[in-house]
Amino acid sequence: MSTLSDNAYGKSGIRLVRVARRGARHELRDWTLAVRFRGAYDAAYRDGDNRDVLPTDTMKNTVYAFAKERPFGAPEEFARALVEHFTAHNTEAQSVAVEIVERPWSRLPGAGEAGTHDHAFTPAPCRRHAWVERDAQGMRVRGGVSEMVLLKTTSSGFARFRRDRYTTLPETDDRILATAIEASWQIEGSRALDHDELWATAKAAIEESFGAHFSRSVQELIWIMGNAVLARCPAIASIHLRLPNLHHLPVDLSPFGLDGRGEVFVATSAPYGLIEGTVRRGT
Amino acid sequence: MSTLSDNAYGKSGIRLVRVARRGARHELRDWTLAVRFRGAYDAAYRDGDNRDVLPTDTMKNTVYAFAKERPFGAPEEFARALVEHFTAHNTEAQSVAVEIVERPWSRLPGAGEAGTHDHAFTPAPCRRHAWVERDAQGMRVRGGVSEMVLLKTTSSGFARFRRDRYTTLPETDDRILATAIEASWQIEGSRALDHDELWATAKAAIEESFGAHFSRSVQELIWIMGNAVLARCPAIASIHLRLPNLHHLPVDLSPFGLDGRGEVFVATSAPYGLIEGTVRRGT
Amino acid sequence: MSTLSDNAYGKSGIRLVRVARRGARHELRDWTLAVRFRGAYDAAYRDGDNRDVLPTDTMKNTVYAFAKERPFGAPEEFARALVEHFTAHNTEAQSVAVEIVERPWSRLPGAGEAGTHDHAFTPAPCRRHAWVERDAQGMRVRGGVSEMVLLKTTSSGFARFRRDRYTTLPETDDRILATAIEASWQIEGSRALDHDELWATAKAAIEESFGAHFSRSVQELIWIMGNAVLARCPAIASIHLRLPNLHHLPVDLSPFGLDGRGEVFVATSAPYGLIEGTVRRGT
Amino acid sequence: MSTLSDNAYGKSGIRLVRVARRGARHELRDWTLAVRFRGAYDAAYRDGDNRDVLPTDTMKNTVYAFAKERPFGAPEEFARALVEHFTAHNTEAQSVAVEIVERPWSRLPGAGEAGTHDHAFTPAPCRRHAWVERDAQGMRVRGGVSEMVLLKTTSSGFARFRRDRYTTLPETDDRILATAIEASWQIEGSRALDHDELWATAKAAIEESFGAHFSRSVQELIWIMGNAVLARCPAIASIHLRLPNLHHLPVDLSPFGLDGRGEVFVATSAPYGLIEGTVRRGT
Repeated sequence: MSTLSDNAYGKSGIRLVRVARRGARHELRDWTLAVRFRGAYDAAYRDGDNRDVLPTDTMKNTVYAFAKERPFGAPEEFARALVEHFTAHNTEAQSVAVEIVERPWSRLPGAGEAGTHDHAFTPAPCRRHAWVERDAQGMRVRGGVSEMVLLKTTSSGFARFRRDRYTTLPETDDRILATAIEASWQIEGSRALDHDELWATAKAAIEESFGAHFSRSVQELIWIMGNAVLARCPAIASIHLRLPNLHHLPVDLSPFGLDGRGEVFVATSAPYGLIEGTVRRGT
Repeated sequence: MSTLSDNAYGKSGIRLVRVARRGARHELRDWTLAVRFRGAYDAAYRDGDNRDVLPTDTMKNTVYAFAKERPFGAPEEFARALVEHFTAHNTEAQSVAVEIVERPWSRLPGAGEAGTHDHAFTPAPCRRHAWVERDAQGMRVRGGVSEMVLLKTTSSGFARFRRDRYTTLPETDDRILATAIEASWQIEGSRALDHDELWATAKAAIEESFGAHFSRSVQELIWIMGNAVLARCPAIASIHLRLPNLHHLPVDLSPFGLDGRGEVFVATSAPYGLIEGTVRRGT
Repeated sequence: MSTLSDNAYGKSGIRLVRVARRGARHELRDWTLAVRFRGAYDAAYRDGDNRDVLPTDTMKNTVYAFAKERPFGAPEEFARALVEHFTAHNTEAQSVAVEIVERPWSRLPGAGEAGTHDHAFTPAPCRRHAWVERDAQGMRVRGGVSEMVLLKTTSSGFARFRRDRYTTLPETDDRILATAIEASWQIEGSRALDHDELWATAKAAIEESFGAHFSRSVQELIWIMGNAVLARCPAIASIHLRLPNLHHLPVDLSPFGLDGRGEVFVATSAPYGLIEGTVRRGT
Repeated sequence: MSTLSDNAYGKSGIRLVRVARRGARHELRDWTLAVRFRGAYDAAYRDGDNRDVLPTDTMKNTVYAFAKERPFGAPEEFARALVEHFTAHNTEAQSVAVEIVERPWSRLPGAGEAGTHDHAFTPAPCRRHAWVERDAQGMRVRGGVSEMVLLKTTSSGFARFRRDRYTTLPETDDRILATAIEASWQIEGSRALDHDELWATAKAAIEESFGAHFSRSVQELIWIMGNAVLARCPAIASIHLRLPNLHHLPVDLSPFGLDGRGEVFVATSAPYGLIEGTVRRGT
């Protein structure tokens, strides 16, 4: 005898680009969506009975139809509309989740508003995330950012750490710190919000705190960044940060009678430190 | 005021290749390891106090030293030795986890045992996984496989599913089914086991059940595969399977007066269905 | 005033999977194709005049229609049929080339012929290549292989090399040699050939010579492999080999009082040596 | 009997990050280098005789030593210094080439000069290229850019093209055009140049011409861009442009009684058009 648990199914990798034409001025949204249903689907697994299974192809079609029917705007709002539709029509689904990864595009220089081009764009290097999930507990909304690469050439150290018989790392109070931030935040309640503005504010808070502080570890940097976001964004209840430490190692030039400290580094991709933590309001 | 939770830190991407030279006959293990500590590390985050922080560089050094000192063998055993070492020396760590991803290599044809080469190898296309974690609840061991790509050209269908106004998918009882399986299983208790044999048996059970049954959905395939593994591997308590549906769509050749059904397909990478579930013993 | 040269255009990334159903026994071909035209297309570039431009979408359609109409078989034959079609109907194209990258699949174990499954498959880790090009000089056919990863744990060295003031590399007569071979060969004349057999023979010759010889450098290995292919395959006029040296470095365990030579290695991805050369018949 | 030709060897993937500390204001260069020697190396291939073979490890060491010894500046200058060094000391090398791929970083906002941060950076999404090669014909210098992604939501069409029996593509005079530009230009003579300024000017010329013109095909866009670069950069003799056409297809919403033309697109990654051409001065 055996039992089924943790079932989930859906469509991932739905690529959607929306254009809003406001006269000559065009707006652009570039999204990759994933839809996930969890629930009372035992018959499909155990008996091959698909009667309650909405095809993942239909999930994809729904996304495209909604892209025509729903207002052009923040991914959080679009995800919410999809979640409401799917929960209303699929009562077997005890949880419905939609994740949207947005590739932000910025305008090229041009003759339009504020010296920018009306319809030509180039992508920003990071990704924006929006998650909406509805289950018996209600609706939850998360925002986030990933692939947000930051580097500082100083104002970072790592010293006075634990040593054991396998420790060879020298202490340093001046090193390159490079990382690719993955952050995800829980949005308080379900108030109406300008999600685009919230995202920009949270991202700016991360960037500013990165540059503003000496960090004695990536752990401390996470704490500082997390608190900066909470301070600037009252709508955010908690934030999880996940930072790889993309080591830039000083090259040993002593065999050539040279000293390249502080000037010559090798950027490595493996191994890498990986540090994470959640900062939440309250005690 | 704010609080820290869900902290974790460690080293990822530790690349280790071990060679055992048994006379002319060499054995090879190719691993990528990750070490994770979770626990009472608030001082590091909040105060930049690193006194209890074992550097991730030391974790890496420990892996390499253990590769010399510990017996050559299954990744589960090596991970367990590391976990025991780290928990013994880092009491702040309420949880220590080690994950090993093994790239399996097979021997080239040659003049050695059973027509194989003594020291020349080529990689298998899938990956083996071993996870060991120790916390207050004790030690847990998981095995797994990923990037296990399987395709069948028939014996798969999808029909009699739910339809709504956005459904356009035609029913079929004969389609290509292709997937890249990610499976992870919980190993019962802590008995001594031949982990290499267990892994090979579980993998073979997945492969055999893939080819042996008509599948009316990926959901049903997960149920069949999961039960096949439980039937063949008494040491496995439960198995989680995660299968993308790598759609192979029939190409519409009707504009050219042709019918390519069953013969001509376009393999797509996005969007893709993603289906998962856990099968566990008992009711 | 300016001039146009080196123009080329076409469709890349055309994903085609063909199935041949010979009763219960199915055959599978998994291809990614690219079509390239070069020629008298100045009007398109200079004047935006598309009259002579066959859309790349049509190239893709032609591939799919041919997949229905042409015999199931080797990629070299299919590429040749496409090249002949395109050159016959596009006289502006002074050169037409078709490249096919085949993902080879092997059968799972099963109850069919020779203990293999009739319709369930798993992919091989390497890629097969076929190129056909026709221009004023006639038709040329090339075959090849890529992503062919091989590793030997011994029978490789590198010593007695040039030294200058920046040289620190120790000499060795026993190292791991790992590489991902990219080979491409020119097929002599236009005789009818069993291209599947030729490809398998050339690949086997590369594998066997890899394991059979001590190599004093990757350069020497290229020479040995190239000559092995020429010796086994009379239809091949010349072969180009391109081998990254995927360094496996001994880990220095001396800080821990250990010596891991020959046993403990770190596999690195960057930097890597890259060595290539063409071996051709005759003097 | 067989012959060797087209030999080449070197080190690729050399990761170098240089920091120049001008007081509190830091400058950053992030490079991946490749060094290639071609020449009279038959003895290494045919006889395993390494006497004339400078190890690729030494090439890497030389790069790091030069990073300390040579002035901080444009990659073209650094590559030239390396090429001169290697050709002077390795007379067997009939050709020495150095390629540098630069990841450009821009400053975060901050309290330094012009509202930018003194030592905190974020990467630009494109890559800069510099190639220097010396052989019997002398020294040649090329610059370039890759991964330069641009998209416009209108001002692009494709119509009045050739049709054959496999053509189904509808004509359009209003489509999304998206591409990831790869450009490489030949620099005239060997005059002293501000290579950083030249690169920025060429890149800006490409961007501006992308946004400024209606393009009737990617071919015409290449011609327009190439001429824009030649017009703005007298030091550039010719430019090669290679543009994938990253198709954004209108989604057919007619099954749902909707029309999403101009608003709802699916971004595809395969198949893709690939168009290239060289524009050079003179007739």
